[in-house]
Formats: sequence, structure tokens, C-alpha cells
Amino acid sequence: MSKVKVAINGYGTIGKRVADAVSLQDDMEVLGVTKTRPNFEARLANDRNYPLYGISKESVKSFEEEDLKTEGLSDSLLEAADIVVDCTPGKIGAKNKEALYIPKKLKAIYQGGEKASVGDTSFIAQVNYISSLGKDHIRVVSCNTTGLSRTLGALSSNFTIGNTRAFLVRRSADPRDSSKGPINAIIPDPLNVPSHHGPDVKTILPELNVITSAVKVPTTLMHLHSLMIELKDGTSGEDIKSLLEKTRRVKVLHSKEGFRSTAELIEYARDLGRSRYDLYENMIWEDSIIVKDSEAYLFQGIAQESIVVPENIDAIRAALELETDAEKSMDKTDKALSI
Amino acid sequence: MSKVKVAINGYGTIGKRVADAVSLQDDMEVLGVTKTRPNFEARLANDRNYPLYGISKESVKSFEEEDLKTEGLSDSLLEAADIVVDCTPGKIGAKNKEALYIPKKLKAIYQGGEKASVGDTSFIAQVNYISSLGKDHIRVVSCNTTGLSRTLGALSSNFTIGNTRAFLVRRSADPRDSSKGPINAIIPDPLNVPSHHGPDVKTILPELNVITSAVKVPTTLMHLHSLMIELKDGTSGEDIKSLLEKTRRVKVLHSKEGFRSTAELIEYARDLGRSRYDLYENMIWEDSIIVKDSEAYLFQGIAQESIVVPENIDAIRAALELETDAEKSMDKTDKALSI
Repeated sequence: MSKVKVAINGYGTIGKRVADAVSLQDDMEVLGVTKTRPNFEARLANDRNYPLYGISKESVKSFEEEDLKTEGLSDSLLEAADIVVDCTPGKIGAKNKEALYIPKKLKAIYQGGEKASVGDTSFIAQVNYISSLGKDHIRVVSCNTTGLSRTLGALSSNFTIGNTRAFLVRRSADPRDSSKGPINAIIPDPLNVPSHHGPDVKTILPELNVITSAVKVPTTLMHLHSLMIELKDGTSGEDIKSLLEKTRRVKVLHSKEGFRSTAELIEYARDLGRSRYDLYENMIWEDSIIVKDSEAYLFQGIAQESIVVPENIDAIRAALELETDAEKSMDKTDKALSI
Repeated sequence: MSKVKVAINGYGTIGKRVADAVSLQDDMEVLGVTKTRPNFEARLANDRNYPLYGISKESVKSFEEEDLKTEGLSDSLLEAADIVVDCTPGKIGAKNKEALYIPKKLKAIYQGGEKASVGDTSFIAQVNYISSLGKDHIRVVSCNTTGLSRTLGALSSNFTIGNTRAFLVRRSADPRDSSKGPINAIIPDPLNVPSHHGPDVKTILPELNVITSAVKVPTTLMHLHSLMIELKDGTSGEDIKSLLEKTRRVKVLHSKEGFRSTAELIEYARDLGRSRYDLYENMIWEDSIIVKDSEAYLFQGIAQESIVVPENIDAIRAALELETDAEKSMDKTDKALSI
């Protein structure tokens, strides 16, 4: 079987992870990656033998000035690709769709920083792989929406749930963002509650009523979600635990093994030998899974840089119909990423 | 009128604030403060002319060795006092009650780090001043319970409310705690949800059903609460705003004036010239007060070091029946503290 040719437009926090994940699959390959500036990531692309393209003549020139190997303008990359994964900063994907991908009749995967309308569908492999088959424009949802949708998707397809309230404690900056704050503050963000995350979950699970609010805090490692889920049947905490323990891309962790904060989750990822200490799974504290007065509670940690990586891989397979069985696609992805 | 003589047992984060607040009232005075070690706060007591007592012979000796003026053992202070405000670390107040205050037939005010059972009543001036009149042992509730009780007390006495869910994002350390963490993690605390804060609110507002969960984050300035309150009547966001704007010890702040995080709230306290940048009020973001689908939402900031200070002053007046009108006591307290 020949491998499908994947272009990565934007080789940054998400793009470099998607490129590595693509290169680990047996049915796809990295045709090339694009970059605007000749920073350390551009050099990493050279080191990993990902053909490097500039998004403008200035970009290409800046690569050459820094002795970076470049294949020239990204236009030729997009011409030759079977599909593009757009990993550009939020809102630029929508511009690229109109200016580049539609004119070139190129299928595209977008990230969660884009509005839902950029995609023909929003995507979580466990929920709607089949209905996404063959779509030209697929939006992988944000890290927070991914984390919420996996857990709530599992619960809602096994139990009868009512209103869900979620509170999101967001990392304020990624590890690389040395100039972002705050150092010492809690920021309601958005200040207007409810936040946009609840409506975004509805792009994946339209039947659910999910209400979210969020703050940003001085940490870089992970987001943390507190979920409060009304139960309409007699579901117990044990029922929820055993379901989540069986759920793909979800890990249930026990405090007696030393998992007491986001810090130990990341230490665990480092010990596992995960590339860049990435965690592709919802990390749920077992101790926090409790049912009281017909309402379920739990805390989950969400690694903002990496949780969407397996979804991007499955979205490529769905768009190109490389695999029509959702479970088989996820099996391949998870095996390649050691999930 | 002669002033009542107040002993402060434990001159630390809360004790030094209560001492200053007592000294600003016209119906009470600081008879003396106790301390275990000769640190900078012991010297501050000397500087402010608060008679300094040691809790043991070793304490007294250590003060003398550091050239601190001391009146000797705290036992003589307690013998001479009309009332004691116990500001010792959590759980020590209960021991002091049995070992010191009951034997000496001394009325006592305790802090929220003690179990509710230490007091004949738990206390929030706006809610239960009258029913606390003449009580021998009064427990001022914790900063978080104070913040929740003020807001929920106002809402529940003016509107018909149902279940309330609150998520608490707690500062991990006080500004003085240079050795506490985390630097870079979000800690579910307690890991078992719901947290103890909800039941603690019931010591003040027994008819309410309040469910809380909490995390700790790397900041020192303030706690932040996200409140979700089911409404049983047609209350609007405007109704809630105008009620809270009229509510004592609550400030409603507007983001258009630049209040976007806990950082600006503290900057505001500094600009007001507040001692130690203390904020005695619930600080509520006006933008966050929203009613959607019969549920009210809001964010409030709670200054953990100072919010209980006015409650301690009113609790002294209630215990000694210095003032039988709750509003008049709070008027005196608030005027003296420039609230």
C-alpha cells in the first residue's frame, strides 16, 4: 500500500507533534512542513528530514540565510499533497481554507482554534469517526473540548445524564511561552460566564447540555477540569470508574500511587518515555470519581499540547477513507503512539 | 464607656490584623497579644505597643534574649481579659478551649480552621449576629466560607434559590509563605469531591444545599470562587447585580474599569491605602453576573488573610453583648476599617 502524502501547514506546538505522529503510521507520510521563521523548530524539521517550505518568499530567504535546507514555497507542497493538516494559529486556518485549500481542491484538517464553521464536521474519533468519513474539511476540536467530549461521550452513551457543569482551570501559557503570564494572579477567562467551551462540546455531542466556566492560572503543564454531571438513572461511582477504566484514550489514576496534582501526571509521562512528555489521554483521578445525590463528580487533567494529536491522525484517515472502521483506525493510531 | 479588654492569642497572619482592627474601635482595646517565637511580628507588637506575652517560659526567655519587651506568660493576660480571640493555627483553638478558656470562664472567639463543634455557634455578622448574642464560644468561619455565606446569604434571603454549586480556585500559599508550593501545578484539594466547604456553609445557612469542589494553584493573592446557583423564581442578572451592589461587605467591580483578575483587585486595595493591602469585602466581577436557563453565575475574589477581620470584631461585640443591633455593630466596624 502506498502511503498518503500529508502536508503540515504550520510546524509549531501542534504541527511538530502531528508531523512526528504521522511519520509513525504505516499508511501515511510527511510530505513536508511549512514555517514562517527560521527558529529552532525549522532546524528540527531539517534534522528529522521533514522537507521544509516557507510560506512566503521572505520565509524561504530567511531559511537560506540561516543555512536551513528548504524546498521553497509552500504552494508546491500543497499542490503535491493528498491532504493538509492546518496547524497555524487560531483563525488563520479559515483564511487558508478560502485562499489555498478550496482553490487547490485539497482536503484539510483544522485545529480547535478555528470556528466550528470552518469544518464540514467537528471531530472526536470515539464519537463521530464514521459520520466524518470522506469529508473534505474536518475540524479537530480544541484540547479542552476533546477532554470534555471523550469523558462525556463515554458517560452519555452508557448512562442517562442530565445537565453537566464543568469548571476549567486552564494553564495560562505553554512551556515554551516564556513571556506570557500571569506570575501571580487568577484570571477569570472569559469573564462572561458561561464560557464558549460548553457550546463547543455541542459540536460533538449535540444532545448534551453542558455549561462551562473557566479561569487561567500560573502554570504551564496541563489544564484541569472539574466535572459535575447530573445522573438520571441509578449510576454509581463504581459504574463510572469501571466504564472510564475501559474507555479508550482515558487513563484512571490512583492517588495511592502518588498522583496528587498535574505535576505527577507529567512526571509519569516523562517516566513512560513519551516524546516531549506528551499525554494523549484524559488523565482522571480515581479518588475524585464520586456520585452524591444523583450527581457525578470528577477531576481530569488535560495536556493542552498533545491531547489532540491522535485525533488529527484519525481525522486524516476519516477524510481520506483510509479506514472505514473507527476502532481499527484508533487501534493503529494508539499502537503507533504507544497509547 | 470603658473599653472591653481583648486578648489576642496568636499574633500571626490573622492575629496581627485582628489586633489592629480592635485598636481602631472605640469600645474595645488590645490588652495584649501572645506569640511563641521572637520573630519580626513579635517586634511589631512591641512597636505598636501591644503588650507581648509568651505562651511558655521558653517563649518569654527567647523574647528577652532578643531584647523584646515582654509582660511574661500568657496565663496572666488571659486572667485579666474580658474575651480572647484565638488566632492560633487550626485545631489548636480547640485544645486551648479545654485547657485555658473554659477553666478560666473566659469567652472566646475562634477561627475557621477549627471544627464547627468548637463554638456554640458559627458566625457571619450579616446572617446570625442576633442569634449569637451572649454566646461564650463563637467560631468565625473560614475565609472561603465567609465569602460564600455573604453572597449566598444575600441571595437566599431575597430570592428563592435551589442547589448551589461552587468551584473554589484557592491560592496555594499566603504572601509570607516563601517555602510553600506549588510553583507549576494544579492540585485538586481535596481530591475527594465534594469538598468540606459546602457543609461548612451549612453551619451558617443550614437551609441551603451547597456543593463545593476545590483546587490549589500557584498564586498568593486571593482565592477565586465560581458560583452556579439554581434560581426557583424569575430573578434576573440585573436583580442580582442590584442586590449585591447594595449588600454590605460586598463590592461589585466592572471590567471596563480594568478589573480583569485578582491582580487588579489587590492593586486597588493598595491604591485605597488599605493596611497590608487587605480586602475585607467579597470582590465580585460585575461582568460575570449572568442568569441563563434559571441558573445564576458569578465569579468572586476572596482575600484569604483579611476577609474574616470584620467578622472577628462583630463576634466580640455579639459575645459580650456590647451592641444588640447587628447593623449598628457592623456600622461601627466598617467605619473604623474604612469599608
